[in-house]
Amino acid sequence: MRYTLGCSLSYNILADTTFIFNLEVAKLQSVEILRETLTLSPDLKREIYIHPDTQNRYLGVNVPTGPFSLEYEAEVDLTVHRGDPAQIGETPVAKLPIDILPYLLPSRFVSSDRLTPFAQAEFSALPQGHQRVNAICNWIHEHLAYQPGSSDEQTTAHETLLKRAGVCRDFAHLGTAFCRALGIPARFVSCYAHGLVPSDFHAVFEAYLDGRWWLFDATRQADPDGLVRIGVGRDAAEIAFSTPFGNMQPVNQQIRIQRSDGQGSPMPRTVDAISTEVPAPHAGAA
Amino acid sequence: MRYTLGCSLSYNILADTTFIFNLEVAKLQSVEILRETLTLSPDLKREIYIHPDTQNRYLGVNVPTGPFSLEYEAEVDLTVHRGDPAQIGETPVAKLPIDILPYLLPSRFVSSDRLTPFAQAEFSALPQGHQRVNAICNWIHEHLAYQPGSSDEQTTAHETLLKRAGVCRDFAHLGTAFCRALGIPARFVSCYAHGLVPSDFHAVFEAYLDGRWWLFDATRQADPDGLVRIGVGRDAAEIAFSTPFGNMQPVNQQIRIQRSDGQGSPMPRTVDAISTEVPAPHAGAA
Amino acid sequence: MRYTLGCSLSYNILADTTFIFNLEVAKLQSVEILRETLTLSPDLKREIYIHPDTQNRYLGVNVPTGPFSLEYEAEVDLTVHRGDPAQIGETPVAKLPIDILPYLLPSRFVSSDRLTPFAQAEFSALPQGHQRVNAICNWIHEHLAYQPGSSDEQTTAHETLLKRAGVCRDFAHLGTAFCRALGIPARFVSCYAHGLVPSDFHAVFEAYLDGRWWLFDATRQADPDGLVRIGVGRDAAEIAFSTPFGNMQPVNQQIRIQRSDGQGSPMPRTVDAISTEVPAPHAGAA
Amino acid sequence: MRYTLGCSLSYNILADTTFIFNLEVAKLQSVEILRETLTLSPDLKREIYIHPDTQNRYLGVNVPTGPFSLEYEAEVDLTVHRGDPAQIGETPVAKLPIDILPYLLPSRFVSSDRLTPFAQAEFSALPQGHQRVNAICNWIHEHLAYQPGSSDEQTTAHETLLKRAGVCRDFAHLGTAFCRALGIPARFVSCYAHGLVPSDFHAVFEAYLDGRWWLFDATRQADPDGLVRIGVGRDAAEIAFSTPFGNMQPVNQQIRIQRSDGQGSPMPRTVDAISTEVPAPHAGAA
Repeated sequence: MRYTLGCSLSYNILADTTFIFNLEVAKLQSVEILRETLTLSPDLKREIYIHPDTQNRYLGVNVPTGPFSLEYEAEVDLTVHRGDPAQIGETPVAKLPIDILPYLLPSRFVSSDRLTPFAQAEFSALPQGHQRVNAICNWIHEHLAYQPGSSDEQTTAHETLLKRAGVCRDFAHLGTAFCRALGIPARFVSCYAHGLVPSDFHAVFEAYLDGRWWLFDATRQADPDGLVRIGVGRDAAEIAFSTPFGNMQPVNQQIRIQRSDGQGSPMPRTVDAISTEVPAPHAGAA
Repeated sequence: MRYTLGCSLSYNILADTTFIFNLEVAKLQSVEILRETLTLSPDLKREIYIHPDTQNRYLGVNVPTGPFSLEYEAEVDLTVHRGDPAQIGETPVAKLPIDILPYLLPSRFVSSDRLTPFAQAEFSALPQGHQRVNAICNWIHEHLAYQPGSSDEQTTAHETLLKRAGVCRDFAHLGTAFCRALGIPARFVSCYAHGLVPSDFHAVFEAYLDGRWWLFDATRQADPDGLVRIGVGRDAAEIAFSTPFGNMQPVNQQIRIQRSDGQGSPMPRTVDAISTEVPAPHAGAA
Repeated sequence: MRYTLGCSLSYNILADTTFIFNLEVAKLQSVEILRETLTLSPDLKREIYIHPDTQNRYLGVNVPTGPFSLEYEAEVDLTVHRGDPAQIGETPVAKLPIDILPYLLPSRFVSSDRLTPFAQAEFSALPQGHQRVNAICNWIHEHLAYQPGSSDEQTTAHETLLKRAGVCRDFAHLGTAFCRALGIPARFVSCYAHGLVPSDFHAVFEAYLDGRWWLFDATRQADPDGLVRIGVGRDAAEIAFSTPFGNMQPVNQQIRIQRSDGQGSPMPRTVDAISTEVPAPHAGAA
Repeated sequence: MRYTLGCSLSYNILADTTFIFNLEVAKLQSVEILRETLTLSPDLKREIYIHPDTQNRYLGVNVPTGPFSLEYEAEVDLTVHRGDPAQIGETPVAKLPIDILPYLLPSRFVSSDRLTPFAQAEFSALPQGHQRVNAICNWIHEHLAYQPGSSDEQTTAHETLLKRAGVCRDFAHLGTAFCRALGIPARFVSCYAHGLVPSDFHAVFEAYLDGRWWLFDATRQADPDGLVRIGVGRDAAEIAFSTPFGNMQPVNQQIRIQRSDGQGSPMPRTVDAISTEVPAPHAGAA
């Protein structure tokens, strides 16, 4: 599927500010970037860093006082891998590639260690595999209210469970935490999301099952095969779309994604399992 | 300085267990490994993974029911870089290499975001640089009791601050958190530590100042130039010396380090700033 | 029903210690105390305080260094009021006596304010009244493990919910918290409990429904009509059986209760609603 | 000193709402109420409850949909008891009246049990008595920012310590918590406060020293001898000026206090220790 997507961000810089942006489409085998432009105004020097493990693209800019804006535009071809949920099992920890194991550990907003008793009690008896993670998503969808303003940037998964409310970030953190608490590697994913209304940066998560990462969206608010990845990480701390160090005010923010392959009608929401990452040979696997 | 060091670990495995160990000396430019042996009993298949960023050496083993033991022995030559604390300043965020920036973010046990007001109030007015991080260590040393049993494996930096007590892990988490809260990149370090009584795995931290990582030990219990690094990470979650998935009981654990260069007398505890990592050219730095 | 009950406590006092005990049977209309003795050894001066609202009996003793023991023995006739659960509704807040209202507020271990979203989501749609509180008890009984050692003296209701485990104190705190979060006044009750194995001080809770306090025991471990009240309070902080200020070691503790009316066979566990407090005319009620 | 004081509150009631107000001046020996009026509009039935221990005056009103307002006006003569801070010592726990002991226990917002290590470390070595509690107030005043908006109605003392910011409620909770953690009975006080700018309900705390309750205000924002008590309690949960059960919106709120004895000039802020409660004979004291 072909998408045009992008974002426009503007800021009022009150004192010299260093920004780390992570908003460009990740360069994956499953994503062909047909064209791409990123414009800064003023046109400042850019520092580029591509994380060797995740392929996340970080952009560093030092911005002086005054107005500052960023404009990103891309057209991409997204190939999704589909699977039959019933056929996708869990990988025993003993068989996990060693570089996947960090995604079993708790992180700042994914307090899986504190949620282990809850996760074990609710989900340990369910059939394993893709359908268990799907059951986790159903549980979250049924038990939590999607409620802008109910959380803040320090909200952690176990707090979300008590508040029974959150936004996409919180839904993804809780899903990730439940998975890790059950011994299923899971990670946080930021993306452009087709079908999301109103359009915004979106957060979902991936679980590692049967040798590859599969996408899950507990909010059920976007097209599962319309998620174009920006970044992956242990949690939101690692892949904020904008991390400013300094003093500034956001002025405006606009995110967009549209199909550009002449398919005007909405895609049916698939019941397939969806993956966009091609499995790589893992270090240490024998 | 030349050290012989190692550890002996034994377990009673109650059900198939996957271990990830991180207890071998990190292969750094500053550490020449003269000889090294790692013996498993029974002699099981090993999976090796060296993290590309940190050089941490992870060892994965799947262990069946029964007794299991690990024996590690190494002799190393450690070269420490010394500096004059008064000359080592802080690096403005705008000048930090982009791959250093993740060490400014909060992580599971380093809740720097929750400690920011406290850190700003206590330490923001102090002279910057190595001496500020040293002042943080002094504060921790004076205000916290070193108290085995006062914390557990879920204890987070802000809880340690309230408890005013902890062990080396907690002291290192709190030091790391205060640094990050002040905009100083910091990370958790596990090591063999000469001078530590009783001998055990030790935890200290590193702060990134003036272009390189400098070692700090808020416990003041080991020789600053006798710390032989095992791993570095955002916090203890990433570099536990042993992470078991399964069901087992630890039976015995013994850690040792001695000088082997004929220098029987204790080293004087240096007042120099100490670093053991040679700065590398950073991605994106221009 | 007639019971003989009591306890034997002994301590090793390391430095002058003030004890506040709350372990004598409360003097209620429903409890006739046939005989009662409380012996201190050594025989120290006693300070007595009966709380005017709750009738809790507090006993203060200043104890010097050395061995110290307390022996309490009583025989009581307990009259329980029984009701048909289906006929016992909730009292709208507007109709609550004003002196009952404090039992709607959060307290140290009953963090009802933090549990409101959870309670509303799980229980707000259920039929109101005694059966709703009973449903809360069922939920707790089904979702939590009764697990000595899983909590400590600082454990709060919302933590118990995450841990999915606790002891009688935690079960009672969580039941109390869910009730308050739903607008049902609730309070913590300590008691001698017939049927509890092994015998110990027990904790249950009361909810205020249709004009009187009804007993609930989410642990389901004792006879509902065999609970002889010691104290009531907002939570465990107010009615610990022993609150020592000083330095001492508990040496031994033995709690007992038996039927003494010749009814050797166990009572059937009733399905009636049970209450042991006779409603009093309330201040301000018109 | 003579004061006229009062408040005007108005609400928009969206659905039947029960209010419990606690905003009338407490009837103490030290406060002569010269005149007093409380007007409700519409003029609804009032339920009155005076707490037997604290003399707090609670007013219950059931209010139907529509506009609702309350107007309170009083003129009082306040007699303050003054003492020499250096002469006011602490009362050993063994000598405390038994009805004072509950003010040593933790409560919902006064997490003194979690703050004990911190309090012991900071304050245990200081000279005891009024000057130690004064040192606690100085510490709070120096280390916390008075910052409206920095806390909410669930903020607990240990969180305030980490945030290093709060409003009068938080300052009073933290002072209360530090006292209890040191074995000094302490309680939360709501009041009309002369000198406070802008005028508002104020929160301070009392510590029990040498046989009576002494007032402390860690915010240092009002005249110490201009505090006219409304309520006392374990913490803010017990004595909110307005506790609504239902659905309503606050529309307006105005609080006022002025000297009415012809003393236009501001009182000098006293250095005396201040108390407004006359010690009563205590139950159980011998």
